[in-house]
Amino acid sequence: MESLSELSLQFSQLSMFPLFDAAHYWASVMSAREQPGALDVSKKSPVACWFSAMLYCFGGGILSSIMLAEPPVTFLSNGTNILMASITWYLVYYFPSDLFYNFSCIRPIRVIVAALKEVTRTWKILSGVTQAHSRFQDAWLVMITIGWAKGAGGGLISNFEQLVRGVWKPESNELLKMSYPVKVSLVGAVLFTLQQTQHLPLSRNNLMLFYTLFLIATKVQMMLTHSSTSPFQPIEAALCRLLFSCHQAQTPVNEKVTTTSADAKGETSKKPVEKLSAKISKSAQKTEAKKSD
Amino acid sequence: MESLSELSLQFSQLSMFPLFDAAHYWASVMSAREQPGALDVSKKSPVACWFSAMLYCFGGGILSSIMLAEPPVTFLSNGTNILMASITWYLVYYFPSDLFYNFSCIRPIRVIVAALKEVTRTWKILSGVTQAHSRFQDAWLVMITIGWAKGAGGGLISNFEQLVRGVWKPESNELLKMSYPVKVSLVGAVLFTLQQTQHLPLSRNNLMLFYTLFLIATKVQMMLTHSSTSPFQPIEAALCRLLFSCHQAQTPVNEKVTTTSADAKGETSKKPVEKLSAKISKSAQKTEAKKSD
Amino acid sequence: MESLSELSLQFSQLSMFPLFDAAHYWASVMSAREQPGALDVSKKSPVACWFSAMLYCFGGGILSSIMLAEPPVTFLSNGTNILMASITWYLVYYFPSDLFYNFSCIRPIRVIVAALKEVTRTWKILSGVTQAHSRFQDAWLVMITIGWAKGAGGGLISNFEQLVRGVWKPESNELLKMSYPVKVSLVGAVLFTLQQTQHLPLSRNNLMLFYTLFLIATKVQMMLTHSSTSPFQPIEAALCRLLFSCHQAQTPVNEKVTTTSADAKGETSKKPVEKLSAKISKSAQKTEAKKSD
Repeated sequence: MESLSELSLQFSQLSMFPLFDAAHYWASVMSAREQPGALDVSKKSPVACWFSAMLYCFGGGILSSIMLAEPPVTFLSNGTNILMASITWYLVYYFPSDLFYNFSCIRPIRVIVAALKEVTRTWKILSGVTQAHSRFQDAWLVMITIGWAKGAGGGLISNFEQLVRGVWKPESNELLKMSYPVKVSLVGAVLFTLQQTQHLPLSRNNLMLFYTLFLIATKVQMMLTHSSTSPFQPIEAALCRLLFSCHQAQTPVNEKVTTTSADAKGETSKKPVEKLSAKISKSAQKTEAKKSD
Repeated sequence: MESLSELSLQFSQLSMFPLFDAAHYWASVMSAREQPGALDVSKKSPVACWFSAMLYCFGGGILSSIMLAEPPVTFLSNGTNILMASITWYLVYYFPSDLFYNFSCIRPIRVIVAALKEVTRTWKILSGVTQAHSRFQDAWLVMITIGWAKGAGGGLISNFEQLVRGVWKPESNELLKMSYPVKVSLVGAVLFTLQQTQHLPLSRNNLMLFYTLFLIATKVQMMLTHSSTSPFQPIEAALCRLLFSCHQAQTPVNEKVTTTSADAKGETSKKPVEKLSAKISKSAQKTEAKKSD
Repeated sequence: MESLSELSLQFSQLSMFPLFDAAHYWASVMSAREQPGALDVSKKSPVACWFSAMLYCFGGGILSSIMLAEPPVTFLSNGTNILMASITWYLVYYFPSDLFYNFSCIRPIRVIVAALKEVTRTWKILSGVTQAHSRFQDAWLVMITIGWAKGAGGGLISNFEQLVRGVWKPESNELLKMSYPVKVSLVGAVLFTLQQTQHLPLSRNNLMLFYTLFLIATKVQMMLTHSSTSPFQPIEAALCRLLFSCHQAQTPVNEKVTTTSADAKGETSKKPVEKLSAKISKSAQKTEAKKSD
């Protein structure tokens, strides 16, 4: 018990700056590039492409700024982070022969980057909750909203991010059909708000540790099994039937198993890296194209 | 004359909180539910449905916050009001067998709720005008705009409210084709601004009383006659021809008469409540589906 | 050299207020009216038409206000400017027999107005850069962004300006395909930011003078030759190939020459003014319909 509180204390003092932020930008730009049509935009208009990538990287901060009536351009004032995100953007989109993108698509790299990125989510949600707490004393709905916006910002503004690239899909948005990252950010925002208002019998450091571990575990598991079924689905379905008399279409579960085995085979039979990465990138595109921020 | 100023004083001291606010939420959520496709959304995504209903209830506050660069999430910090609006939302959308919705559709209930709701409009416009006055001394255009936004907010942001539900109708918006509530809010905002800048020979209390009575009278009359012709139409048409050389398509007047008589018949021949309410709800849907906020 | 600094000092002390602002409103409302469908809107809904024209006139201020979390309605508090813009709007759209519009379409008038309007661009970009500098010390990206937004605001928010008129073209925006005014504003914002952070061996007054002269010269040249090829195109193309491996579709250059000669002929053979202005307006529509703000 002593060692746990020690561990969680040390964990909570981690600095996001060079490593975790870089992983966040890397993973965000990768999923930006894997949107349908994104590559065309990168050839036609580097400015729109860059701005769209920045919305992926800093969407949460922009959204929460707007919600709190703070200047949404603030994110541009942090030169170092913008530089890091821009370099990542350049490497992913414009590196000769797409070597950097193909390298990023190698499975273990991709999994590690995604895991590191998830760590930043905890920090963002927490910063959103505390920021809202300092301005709106004990308005728990505001705390949840700002925490959620910071943690899942890129997803929540996806309609407008798409508009930058000339794409407009009004029929879909992250409120109508939440993706897993948006859902798990909402759960996190609720938990950190409960912790902040002292309704949760858990210290903040411990919550940070446990929530981050949960984020990483589910993310890695979903990437390895190519599954997109969220662990909340049973609870959601029950809640939905009970409270809202929904009849949600469930994602078929058996499909997942076949993909996994096929892919596992592909990965063990050492083909040349070029071909392999192409294959992985293709299958990754299917799963991750669903905006992974 | 003494008694009038007494009456208007007492009227101006009415508290909106429990009764009138509740009527506003009730009427707003009802018209939210009567949008085409809203019921589907309520089954598929309760979150989007709730958020859309909140935009109907608090749209004016959100819009005026954005215009004044105040945090648009402020409305979430008033826990009691959010709770009231959310309970109304739940009852209207998810009450077993739609009993609450059918109950709300009974004509006299609906008319009373709509009348009470109109009272809140006066208070909102006035609060918008005074708020703008305190920040922008004597900038009468700002006062009109903020008063209008507060009074008719749900209507003015309808494009974005629809987007939450996955609907996008760029070809129509409340500036291109103003609905009656939006028009009457604009007139109210102009009147209260004139009163505030002392260009109107009328005390504020009297103006509040008269404007509210006008709001209620026209609303009730329009609901009872199923008409959607605004009382401003002759003035508008004249102004339009005079200043802007418009050729507006006028709503045919004779159509209105037939609907009214048919409906009056339906209401006197005592059918079972179930059937009646269904009928009323159907015809109400036609008139009120035009966003009634 | 003495006389240059004298000249640029006097130039930098020019007041925008009556003359240059009026030219800006005039040119902006003209290009608003020349959007496809704008005339229909002016007949159907003067309110939407007025608001759309105001977005053309004050778009930069509104956009930069939003970006700096200042009230976007501030532009309405400057009564005199709103009045000037509104009168211009009324004259351009609703003057009997379109006399004012036809008068504005006469080539020399149009060119002079456009030249005067360009002067305001310099002032706007500079005010944006200094405003951002005073709030975000040395955040050069913020300075560029706000300067750009102020200088090219009408263009950058064109998607939402179109939405007011019931038009929605998600496939095109000014980031995806920058028009010349948006590009030249970006260049200006970069230059003034470099000057502000003292990375440019040029005094502010001189920069203002040179940049304005460049703006006017290119604008007038493009209007006279009916060309829409920007002087930056060679640099852009080189940069694009070098950094982003683009293959941009170049605008065919020979087409430009034929239009010019045909038009020059038309102008010398003194036809009645009525016919001429119609002709010019038609050809002007082609070139200038591309939002000229």
